Amino acid sequence: MLKSLGYAAQSAQSPLAPFNFERRITGPHDVQIEILYCGVCHSDLHMARNEWKGTTFPVVPGHEIVGRVTEVGAHVSKFKVGQIAGVGCMVDSCQSCASCDEGLEQYCETGFTGTYSSPEKETGGMTYGGYSNNIVVNEKFVLHVSDKLDPAGAAPLLCAGITTWSPLRHWKVGKGQKVGIVGLGGLGHMGVKLAHAMGAHVVLFTTSPDKKEDALRLGADEVVVSKDAAQMAQHANSFDFILNTVAAQHNLDAFMVLLKREGTMTLVGIPEHSHPSPSVANLIFKRRHLAGSLIGGIQETQEMLDFCAEHGITSDIEIIKIQDINTAYERMLKSDVKYRFVIDMASLAA
Amino acid sequence: MLKSLGYAAQSAQSPLAPFNFERRITGPHDVQIEILYCGVCHSDLHMARNEWKGTTFPVVPGHEIVGRVTEVGAHVSKFKVGQIAGVGCMVDSCQSCASCDEGLEQYCETGFTGTYSSPEKETGGMTYGGYSNNIVVNEKFVLHVSDKLDPAGAAPLLCAGITTWSPLRHWKVGKGQKVGIVGLGGLGHMGVKLAHAMGAHVVLFTTSPDKKEDALRLGADEVVVSKDAAQMAQHANSFDFILNTVAAQHNLDAFMVLLKREGTMTLVGIPEHSHPSPSVANLIFKRRHLAGSLIGGIQETQEMLDFCAEHGITSDIEIIKIQDINTAYERMLKSDVKYRFVIDMASLAA
Repeated sequence: MLKSLGYAAQSAQSPLAPFNFERRITGPHDVQIEILYCGVCHSDLHMARNEWKGTTFPVVPGHEIVGRVTEVGAHVSKFKVGQIAGVGCMVDSCQSCASCDEGLEQYCETGFTGTYSSPEKETGGMTYGGYSNNIVVNEKFVLHVSDKLDPAGAAPLLCAGITTWSPLRHWKVGKGQKVGIVGLGGLGHMGVKLAHAMGAHVVLFTTSPDKKEDALRLGADEVVVSKDAAQMAQHANSFDFILNTVAAQHNLDAFMVLLKREGTMTLVGIPEHSHPSPSVANLIFKRRHLAGSLIGGIQETQEMLDFCAEHGITSDIEIIKIQDINTAYERMLKSDVKYRFVIDMASLAA
Repeated sequence: MLKSLGYAAQSAQSPLAPFNFERRITGPHDVQIEILYCGVCHSDLHMARNEWKGTTFPVVPGHEIVGRVTEVGAHVSKFKVGQIAGVGCMVDSCQSCASCDEGLEQYCETGFTGTYSSPEKETGGMTYGGYSNNIVVNEKFVLHVSDKLDPAGAAPLLCAGITTWSPLRHWKVGKGQKVGIVGLGGLGHMGVKLAHAMGAHVVLFTTSPDKKEDALRLGADEVVVSKDAAQMAQHANSFDFILNTVAAQHNLDAFMVLLKREGTMTLVGIPEHSHPSPSVANLIFKRRHLAGSLIGGIQETQEMLDFCAEHGITSDIEIIKIQDINTAYERMLKSDVKYRFVIDMASLAA
């Protein structure tokens, strides 16, 4: 077995702390990666505290992983030792259902294997995530990360990036379109950057007027304070697509009425408490759609990473030491981060 | 002016009763129609009782109109005296917005002119509907009804027919697809007939086990009692499209989970009390859509009528005299109709 050192929560009540564990050795189709950076996603906190139930403890969170390939299995063809590689939210899937065949492993009909706290076929144990010094993953679920990209800033692309990229691409966002991004957090700030790079006219919706300048810097063409009914009314019936990144309970109708006929608003966050029931009339009278989208497939994640390398896009980050992860969680709860914490995994050895 | 006799409600509290009124004379682009049959839509009752507010009294309801052309204006090219013609929910629209240009007058950006209780441009008065002996309508909003179709059974096609046809066509229902129709009322029974004729595998969902035989007769391939969780579970993740015709408050999630990845459920009824808020997870984990659809455009209404003539499709109806309209409303409230009341307008002269 491969010896690993990470940070784990031993229970829903305990803070993250150093944890020694073992991973499988590098199999014929596997890539072993020395983890350099790992982004901190809100899901990590939910899972560490068992807020979605079903967490298996101890849990080593982290699914925004960038590192260097240190070993490859005999049948690995896509990676070489020394290359920079990424791992996102998935490390396996059935690879035989209709969704997997279409490269949409996130919708695998028997459920994909999550990067942490998921049953691992190879060992019968559980997967451990990226808050650690290494990881072993089937090459099909490993991504190439261009040397052009700052590896720390690239880490959040593996979850925040693909979660916004996939719906923007699926609903064919591009030039000549007016696109809304709701919320300017880890996901929203990536949504703004990507939609802008795709050529759309981007409007950022926020409840915080003080985020305006930053949103414009990130690529928004306009910023609308969503609590200002008069500002909102000016945009009625004008959006081709709205990507709603807000996971907190809120009034969806305020945004639905901004869609054009046949426009779609896509949700990527699951609220703890249900949103107020959206108006059926708003759907009917303009043939509008409300939809959802889950992360993205492996092939489209590679396309997103390549697009980001070409356009020089990374996440805006604050680098932390692993020893500061519990403080970072508290700050994340207060939205006190612009816009993603990324752990410098070199700190683990300190 | 043209003298007309109809049945009107003089207030939200008063029953429908005989009413003499005037219509505009036949203008150069108008068609004058002697009304033979008029279907009774649930909207007629809502409007007569001002349940949606905004009704202007007196109101002559009726927007499922079939009759005979008795006069045509000098510039009318599409119709001749003696032909059978239909009028649905709309008698005018701006005819210059993007939606009207695309033949989607139901989504007219300044609002279409309803067949009754809508401001009429030509006269400055209000429109009066089909519970009457005649009507005058711009030829652009008049439909050809084939002699092959029973004119009484064809009347409900003008609202119940097009309201189900338009979403079935828009979401490309056809052979090889599994399509659900929720509810077996005036709309639902047309949905079953049309989806069946389009070649889809049709599953009818009903809360009433005793509707099973009738649903099969109408063209359903399967009938599922939606209160039976075990029956419902057998259909999880299997539908390409679900047309939900139920306007009463109900749990949408019971049907959302039956959609395949990327499937759509389209609502055509607005509930008086909001549906429970649909689960965001059900949208996200299968990239599903919840949508709405409003009646249909004039061109697609003609296509639907032509399709029905070709396939021998009409509504299942119970013919009533206009004098029985108030009783019919009470029976409609109890769903005591298979599946649409149609007024024989010859009774008006009796």
